[in-house]
Parts: sequence; structure tokens; C-alpha cells
Amino acid sequence: MEKSKKQIIKEASAKLFRKKGFNATSMQDIAAAVGIKAASLYNHIGSKQELLKELLFNIANAFTSGMNDIEASTLSNIEKLEALIDLHVDLTITYRDSIALITGEWVHLEEPDLKNYLKLRTQYEAQFLNILSACKKSKHIDKNTNIELALYSILSSLHWLYSWYNKNKGVSKIELAKQLKVTLLKGVII
Amino acid sequence: MEKSKKQIIKEASAKLFRKKGFNATSMQDIAAAVGIKAASLYNHIGSKQELLKELLFNIANAFTSGMNDIEASTLSNIEKLEALIDLHVDLTITYRDSIALITGEWVHLEEPDLKNYLKLRTQYEAQFLNILSACKKSKHIDKNTNIELALYSILSSLHWLYSWYNKNKGVSKIELAKQLKVTLLKGVII
Repeated sequence: MEKSKKQIIKEASAKLFRKKGFNATSMQDIAAAVGIKAASLYNHIGSKQELLKELLFNIANAFTSGMNDIEASTLSNIEKLEALIDLHVDLTITYRDSIALITGEWVHLEEPDLKNYLKLRTQYEAQFLNILSACKKSKHIDKNTNIELALYSILSSLHWLYSWYNKNKGVSKIELAKQLKVTLLKGVII
Repeated sequence: MEKSKKQIIKEASAKLFRKKGFNATSMQDIAAAVGIKAASLYNHIGSKQELLKELLFNIANAFTSGMNDIEASTLSNIEKLEALIDLHVDLTITYRDSIALITGEWVHLEEPDLKNYLKLRTQYEAQFLNILSACKKSKHIDKNTNIELALYSILSSLHWLYSWYNKNKGVSKIELAKQLKVTLLKGVII
């Protein structure tokens, strides 16, 4: 399927926002990256802010939808945790151009988008914590483990995965997911 | 021991650089935070750049020195890994005001400081990887584990620890280190 002009513009903006930052990226930069005149950009998109919003909500909605599927599934608690790692690997590869925005540039969203974006993120983290909590109840996680800190630690790694992946594109999705399940869940020490 | 004026200025700048970013922080902001006139700042420090440099090299040198002590010690490979977690917890708490700078604001260092800072960081990561590699050789880490990815994952968590710690100051150093050894090394799943 051929990419729409809008899709091409979104991908180019995502790369620029990641490299230069949202504020430092101009409509001229985006037009130059796509190879059209700045004025023509407005035939496809309304504003730089609209691009940021669409890029971030595409990702946030994909995470929310993936999380809801996992939560509603009949997977065991541990299998749900593993499915979450798969979800992050999948979305990191699918949104490789734009996922970097979730680590910082989201702060440039305007209201009410910022509030709505943070609501999705907070909800996602609460659902992730629920799964960790269920694992603790089913004694797959030790009763003394601080699952809030564990969640924080796991998500810090997963949020920065794109930056590792961008330097190691030779690794397959299946191997990446397997390695992360060891590192983040089962423990690197045997 | 009473803090020197310079130390007070450094701590105030660290907080401002973290909250507003290095570029957006003015000498006036720093002066206001310390409660002196902007012109008087120059009796204690040369420039905003000098503050950034001193803050970052204080931290980088503390990591380098801690790493060298661990490397030269007679600890076992696994104990060295655990000692590295202790080191990160220690320095995160000691440098709670400035350690955030290592996740982003270091890019504003000027040359040759930037080059020297990155040299220290690269060296630190190489030494960390060596310890993981030794654990693999001594079969404390599975032969199929990708230790480059494990290092990346562990350091991502540890770099962002300050932000968790700033919201959870009730937790003691000893408990934080214990929890992180579970989450980052032994694995959250039992």
C-alpha cells in the first residue's frame, strides 16, 4: 500500500521532532524533509501542533488498545506480563520514528490534549500495576517486592528501548522480546 | 559544616536546570533562587556553563571513582554487580539535585568538556559491560543472554531512578538498593 502524503509528512516530522526537538523544528524543516514547499504542507495538515498530537495519540491509543486486550484475555498473570513486553517491542518497532516522543516531547502538547494524553498514560500505568499486583497475589512475585518501583524500573527500560533498537536493527522482534523477558522479568542473574 | 556560597549556588542551579532546562535558565533566575543580585553571582562563579560543567563532572567523577574501586576489589562478579546498584543508589541520593542532568542537559556542555564527559561515560559503560561479561563467563548469567541489551536496560532504569526517588523519599537507601537488586538483577518473577 502506498503511503499517503500525510503519512509521509507525519513520519518526517516524527524524525525531526526526535532529533531537533518539537520547538526547534519549523514547518520549513518539515517541508524540506518531505521535498515540498512549506505552503503546500497546509494542504495536508493544519499545524505543527496537529502533527505532534496525531503522532502521540496514535501511539497512546495503540498502547491502550493492546493493554485492554491483554487485560481482558484468559492469559495467566505471568503470561500477561510477558504479553506486555511483546506489546512494547511490537510498538517500538512499528512506531520506530515517533515513539521517542513519549520520553519527552509530549510536554509540548497543548490543552486539552496534554491532559487527555496524561490520562491515557496514567490509566496504562495503573493497568500495568494491577497485573503486577495480581502476580504478587498469585505468589509469582515475592510478597516483599515493591511493585511500584518494579513498574517504574520496567517502564524506564521499555521507554528507552527505541534508542537501543535504532542502533541494533539487526535483532529480530522475537529475539528482542525473548531477551527483554529475561532482563526485565526473570532476572539477568541465574 | 556550613555550605559555601558557591555550593548553595550550584545546588540552586541544578534544580533550575532540571526544572526549566539549561537554556531556559538565566543568571537572573539563579540569583533570585539564591537571594542575591545577579551581578554578585560573578563573585562566586564564572558563568552558567561553568556551573553545568562542575555539576556534571562532580557526578561523572564520583561514578568513575566508584566503578574503579569496585573493579579493583576482591568482590565476586555477582557482588560487583550488586555493588554497582549500591553505587547508583548512593549517588542518586547524594546528588539528588543534579543527577537529573545526566539524562539530558549534558548535551549543553561546550567542547572540550562535552568530549571529556562522553569519554567518562563511555568508559563507565565499558567497565559495567566487562563485569556483566565476567558474570557470563562464570556462568552466573546465561550464555544466551544479550549483555549489551541487559546493560542498556539496567542503566535506563538507574538513570531515571532520581525521578522515582524524588517522589518516594520515605524509602531508605538500604531498602531501595535491596529492591533494585531484585528488580534489575534477580528478576521480579519468582
